[in-house]
Amino acid sequence: MVRTRLDDASPSYSTTVRLEAPVSARLLSDLARSVSERGGEVVAIDLVEATANGVRVDVTFHAVDARHVSVVTSGLTADGYVVRNVSDRTFLSHLGGVIEVVPRTSVRTRDDLSLVYTPGVARISRAIAEEPRRAWNLTGKGNAVAVVTDGSAVLGLGPVGPLAALPVMEGKAALFKTFADVNAFPICLATTDPDEIVATVRAIAPGFGGVNLEDIAAPRCFEVEARLQDALEIPVFHDDQHGTAVVVLAGLLNACRITGRRLEDLRAVVIGIGAAGTAICNILLDAGVQDLVAIDRQGPLDAADPELPPHQRDIVARSKARHVTSIGEALEDADVVVGVSRRGAWEPEVLTKMAPSPIVFALANPEPEVYLDEIPPGGLLATGRSDLPNQVNNALCFPGIFRGALEARAPRITAAMQEAAAHAIAGSVSDVERAIGVIVPSLFHPGVHAEVASAVEAVARGASAGN
Amino acid sequence: MVRTRLDDASPSYSTTVRLEAPVSARLLSDLARSVSERGGEVVAIDLVEATANGVRVDVTFHAVDARHVSVVTSGLTADGYVVRNVSDRTFLSHLGGVIEVVPRTSVRTRDDLSLVYTPGVARISRAIAEEPRRAWNLTGKGNAVAVVTDGSAVLGLGPVGPLAALPVMEGKAALFKTFADVNAFPICLATTDPDEIVATVRAIAPGFGGVNLEDIAAPRCFEVEARLQDALEIPVFHDDQHGTAVVVLAGLLNACRITGRRLEDLRAVVIGIGAAGTAICNILLDAGVQDLVAIDRQGPLDAADPELPPHQRDIVARSKARHVTSIGEALEDADVVVGVSRRGAWEPEVLTKMAPSPIVFALANPEPEVYLDEIPPGGLLATGRSDLPNQVNNALCFPGIFRGALEARAPRITAAMQEAAAHAIAGSVSDVERAIGVIVPSLFHPGVHAEVASAVEAVARGASAGN
Repeated sequence: MVRTRLDDASPSYSTTVRLEAPVSARLLSDLARSVSERGGEVVAIDLVEATANGVRVDVTFHAVDARHVSVVTSGLTADGYVVRNVSDRTFLSHLGGVIEVVPRTSVRTRDDLSLVYTPGVARISRAIAEEPRRAWNLTGKGNAVAVVTDGSAVLGLGPVGPLAALPVMEGKAALFKTFADVNAFPICLATTDPDEIVATVRAIAPGFGGVNLEDIAAPRCFEVEARLQDALEIPVFHDDQHGTAVVVLAGLLNACRITGRRLEDLRAVVIGIGAAGTAICNILLDAGVQDLVAIDRQGPLDAADPELPPHQRDIVARSKARHVTSIGEALEDADVVVGVSRRGAWEPEVLTKMAPSPIVFALANPEPEVYLDEIPPGGLLATGRSDLPNQVNNALCFPGIFRGALEARAPRITAAMQEAAAHAIAGSVSDVERAIGVIVPSLFHPGVHAEVASAVEAVARGASAGN
Repeated sequence: MVRTRLDDASPSYSTTVRLEAPVSARLLSDLARSVSERGGEVVAIDLVEATANGVRVDVTFHAVDARHVSVVTSGLTADGYVVRNVSDRTFLSHLGGVIEVVPRTSVRTRDDLSLVYTPGVARISRAIAEEPRRAWNLTGKGNAVAVVTDGSAVLGLGPVGPLAALPVMEGKAALFKTFADVNAFPICLATTDPDEIVATVRAIAPGFGGVNLEDIAAPRCFEVEARLQDALEIPVFHDDQHGTAVVVLAGLLNACRITGRRLEDLRAVVIGIGAAGTAICNILLDAGVQDLVAIDRQGPLDAADPELPPHQRDIVARSKARHVTSIGEALEDADVVVGVSRRGAWEPEVLTKMAPSPIVFALANPEPEVYLDEIPPGGLLATGRSDLPNQVNNALCFPGIFRGALEARAPRITAAMQEAAAHAIAGSVSDVERAIGVIVPSLFHPGVHAEVASAVEAVARGASAGN
């Protein structure tokens, strides 16, 4: 099923209603009808127990949003069932957080204690004090990543602050471990001041082998990342920028293969030159794209504009694109467009100006700039959504790219390492998949994270061997 | 077995030697003799496999120190065995660190992902953005403790820096989880500047429900703790100070019961007025001790000394002790002495001046100020060592005290909460144990951490209810 709009039920609104009902041979089908008549997708109906007057049942369903949950629940009441409890699986799954910190070995005896803690640990400390590099082996540093945010640009929600950002960082940490066995820990900052962010991350850096900056607003994110990368000898990687860019490049590599194009010949347009858009422009230019028009709120970036901020000026300087003054003009005969703007920022109709078999990345969240039914026939679409084909999900990149960098003890994640990650992601899509229009693999694609890790590690080791 | 000196083999130097030997009916006893003749304590001899010429065997033994390991290993070679590999269990157990960060639920399907991460997590973020207090339930904040050090006073090793401190903080985090299900994460700071420490901890505080300061040198630790506690609405607890003090008070409560004393009547002496010594003086005075002489390097603290730092001046002001000028004079008829100095700082002979059945805490690490055979007959001894009776181990306090504070969402760990913790620790020692001279329970005493937690929680809730 290809969903085309936001009005579908989804597991994000998975709800379990516990209710009481009289015993009836038609109970299950009656309950299912009550839920589905009101648009709920029934997932399961489980008998909890028999009561004096009937049975207690858990009805689990997917809904569209919170209002829809109420509609379905009220419907069950209207149909005569006694609703005892309504629980929301998303909220339940976040109770107490989604990660925990556990010992790698059990500490059950005096003997265990003397190894893990005192007095044995003093020997480990002494060994590291003599030779600090040993911390990479004798502690968790070499496999630890700080997931750092100031809460200023969280998902599509904006500057919701460090506390509201925490569940996102925790979820990210869960994916780091699941996909690449990296121990990631959320660090949510009570400041949005670049100097304070830099000072804080520098201060806590000794215990980490890498820093994943996350959900920090542009243009502050550019400065923070650059200053931290200069100050620290471990990789600092703003995932919103580079993670997205790597996956876009991966998708574009496959799209080019499918449509018989070469990066060097592409006419490319990127709309929305914030954190992710800037990184996308840069990775495309690094990878060989030459004709790239970058468009922000004021229109196509113009080298003559004295107000142009440095990160945008760089892009214009690197591109050989002709001068254009509107989105429509930019898209004429364009091969690929990457939208990191928002739905409504431009009209889907302009895509008809593109070259045949256009490649469209519509990455606005939660609503993409265009849906499947709005792209020209023969076009390829990738979005940020999991319920559409070709989800551009940073989680295809960050676990493996950090795993590879940590394995190589790389001091930074270079452009070459990012390009290697993109090729690894692209390469994990099979010919059969490409034949049916898959340009971005699933997060759950077997082996994709390990392939990214080993490609990145190889480049990192090669680079350090070459020094 | 009661060890009396540092020259005994210990599990901290547990070593496994893999060797090859010809087949012989006497092999096991010959190997055991080779190791024990040289002072090694044989733990196990395991057959690994048969080889073309004999067998491959793992011999595991405890040694005294690294030099002793070489002696035993060379002895095995001298006795004709081919040593293939020598591995050190303490180092093996710290390879890659002793903790990891894991998801609390598995992320194996698209459905799992949509709950734990995007898109579902956006609902959690939005809920917290609307009402920040929800972060206590909907994230791990309410169960997360930052274990923060600047590496300036690590174990008995001194200012070895943040990297060498990391394995200690990791070990501590492992105990937090093991004993009290707290998710603790090490934060090792690249600064020893109080302003920077305070600024950094304030900046990272949103994601935590408590801060355990650790191994920060005096007098800086007093300022850092006080400033952070004022700035933050979560508990900030310098464990080296208060954790030690709580366990000393617990031991003293039991020692008083055994020897029929009351805190109010005690003549007490504390030697070494640094971080721990200061906290010990304060908790004893809080708990009712009135006659307390505090002695630092220059001798008994003197209110007339214009150089006296504030934390020491407070103690003198609170005590009703008579004026004394030497350790010997202070110990005359003293009931209890607490040493947090170092072996050799004072002579064990001075203890003979104490009242009958003296109570002695000799907490210097790794060598206590006095050993069992150096205290007057009928005396009770507690030390910091696990291989002597009555180990004063902070780990009896910090897991439970944070668990209790987190359960109550206490904004600080008050003196009353610390006293409750001490009573809970003391109370977990049974009458039979007291009858054989136990005043401090084992870390592995069943239930002790849960008892500390519930006592602390009850006081914290009472305090907030009383407000």
